[in-house]
Amino acid sequence: MIRAIAVIGTGLIGTSVALAASRRGVTVFLSDRDPLAARTAAALGAGRTRPPAVPVDLAVLAVPPSKVGAVLAEQQARGLAHCYTDVASVKVLPERTALSLAPDPSSYVGGHPMAGRERSGPLAARAELFEGRPWALTPSPLTSPTALRRARELAVLCGAVPVVTQSASHDEAVALTSHVPHLLASLMAARLSGGPAGATRFAGQGLRDVTRIAAGDPGLWGDILQANAPAVAGVVREVHADLSRLVAALDVLSGPDAGQRAGAMRTMVDLLDRGVAGLAGIRPGGPGGPAGCSRVRVAVADRAGELPRLLSGAVRAGADAERVTVEDAGPGRLSVRFGVAPCLAGRLTAALVAEGWDARGENSVYAEAYEEGPVRPAVRT
Amino acid sequence: MIRAIAVIGTGLIGTSVALAASRRGVTVFLSDRDPLAARTAAALGAGRTRPPAVPVDLAVLAVPPSKVGAVLAEQQARGLAHCYTDVASVKVLPERTALSLAPDPSSYVGGHPMAGRERSGPLAARAELFEGRPWALTPSPLTSPTALRRARELAVLCGAVPVVTQSASHDEAVALTSHVPHLLASLMAARLSGGPAGATRFAGQGLRDVTRIAAGDPGLWGDILQANAPAVAGVVREVHADLSRLVAALDVLSGPDAGQRAGAMRTMVDLLDRGVAGLAGIRPGGPGGPAGCSRVRVAVADRAGELPRLLSGAVRAGADAERVTVEDAGPGRLSVRFGVAPCLAGRLTAALVAEGWDARGENSVYAEAYEEGPVRPAVRT
Repeated sequence: MIRAIAVIGTGLIGTSVALAASRRGVTVFLSDRDPLAARTAAALGAGRTRPPAVPVDLAVLAVPPSKVGAVLAEQQARGLAHCYTDVASVKVLPERTALSLAPDPSSYVGGHPMAGRERSGPLAARAELFEGRPWALTPSPLTSPTALRRARELAVLCGAVPVVTQSASHDEAVALTSHVPHLLASLMAARLSGGPAGATRFAGQGLRDVTRIAAGDPGLWGDILQANAPAVAGVVREVHADLSRLVAALDVLSGPDAGQRAGAMRTMVDLLDRGVAGLAGIRPGGPGGPAGCSRVRVAVADRAGELPRLLSGAVRAGADAERVTVEDAGPGRLSVRFGVAPCLAGRLTAALVAEGWDARGENSVYAEAYEEGPVRPAVRT
Repeated sequence: MIRAIAVIGTGLIGTSVALAASRRGVTVFLSDRDPLAARTAAALGAGRTRPPAVPVDLAVLAVPPSKVGAVLAEQQARGLAHCYTDVASVKVLPERTALSLAPDPSSYVGGHPMAGRERSGPLAARAELFEGRPWALTPSPLTSPTALRRARELAVLCGAVPVVTQSASHDEAVALTSHVPHLLASLMAARLSGGPAGATRFAGQGLRDVTRIAAGDPGLWGDILQANAPAVAGVVREVHADLSRLVAALDVLSGPDAGQRAGAMRTMVDLLDRGVAGLAGIRPGGPGGPAGCSRVRVAVADRAGELPRLLSGAVRAGADAERVTVEDAGPGRLSVRFGVAPCLAGRLTAALVAEGWDARGENSVYAEAYEEGPVRPAVRT
């Protein structure tokens, strides 16, 4: 069991790890190349700033990706800890430098808690930052079972979910899910400075969401992107190819030549369609997800107020307001269909019948739902 | 005063307008080319589906941008209403077709309530959708004062903030703040389908936020983007130029040639810096915003627990937890500085002194704050 750790680098992530470990009774030794950062973390309750008298169980190197290798070599030479891990967002580069530079590569395992905030520094730290989040662990061929076990224990202590994977798979995955999204947010946000005066008074939540992560520290992000340049470049090149096609399509749609418009429109709608399809992978609970393949059908008069009454009753009984379709059931009648998880269908039907609705579950819906594809709102304008 | 309106097109926006107007006692006549959509809206309480016997005060054309002109001409020929507006996200095209096709261009004013959801159709409608949101009104040179007044009244009825502007300014602004963000969200989301297996298990809130709006209906968004193609193309070309430079920089950073790395890194960090700068325009309350140019300084011992106690007291007294810096104040002492709105400085100081802290406001801070630029967390690692 981990009793003592050292955290090197008391920024957002290092201090959050230290706070989480301290709360679980672990003794934490803090250091930072900026002594004020370490003192601030200590004053927050993250640990103590004096060095450990004997080697700690695990040292957490919370420094930028390009620094992990050098700090690892330096601290192993000093004998700071029995085992070492890091928290950098890139894993191939630290592993490679560990294997080539570190006195003892077997005591090191790469780590990456997948959590963050736009703010940096110890004052932004939170003990709860990692709760329920994946924490990637990327053992090298030389990593010892003890090093992997201790890093995994730290991740669990912090409330995270350890995910063991290879450093190269990790870097490819985060290029797609974190690094390229950051660049696209920055590309969009960069346009806001030079835009027409007053344009941003029309800024809504959509724009704020698209650009939110662009607020991250440019120095740290430059380091991350540089360290993962090959994987990032691969995804960015694909985005660039799509964008080049889009520029050509928009030029056609802006111009006077009606002949090419249909093709240009297809290019643009194809991109929008692929975007909708891509979202399915990161919205498992969304419409059409595997959780909802049973249906409950309710007959309702199309009088004002009937539909809100039915919908609120159904939501109270556990139905998802986003998985509802309405169909014509003859003059004055509508048929409302709820897509629900199979385990919910009986309960929803019973609850609605108890409230006086003409509700019934539908049979053999598994096959039907899968054949038809996602259940979507049928009513569109 | 508006007593009766007609809503043509009972999708998300049309039905939300109808719900909001109905709640304020306005008689609403609903229609849609899909009768089921109109009946669904009526069953939600948005109005009635029979046509008005006499012309209504205002007709709201809630149809896609490319359809506004034709629907306007058709309904004016029928004499549906005294005045007409629309809710399309693009304003030049509807205005142009109104001026060239409509029997009476003076009774039409362009409108665009700046609100939406990813879901479409009447079931997604909310009476509160427009509350506090800007509602652009774009009178043409021929628009009558009555038409503008009635459209403005509808916007206020719906709880929105009317903003009168020219159609061309509107279209340039929304290209930047809405249409191009949508395309970038789609470009990112489109990459998620073809990515490495299992990559999306590392998807976090950042990716979800960047891609959220890509869930919008591709048919409707294709129509919007096509209708605003010239303005969208202008912004997209600039994004494309930045992205082309970025691809080149990432290629250098992925390759073996160390000579060009510094320049490539500068290109990338410059983009990240411009992104951070661009966000200032849409985050007026963020660090460095004009609201916070007074400072309160508090001396605190750097013992564990002191800092959280001070921070929570300050936040209770109205300080912003994101506008805090820590400085060294000699051995065992830290100096914590809060950036606050001038009107808050006295109250914060008094509240902290009352809790026993050594707190004081700082003098002549206006000029100093503006000279120094944004107040940011000083402690970074």
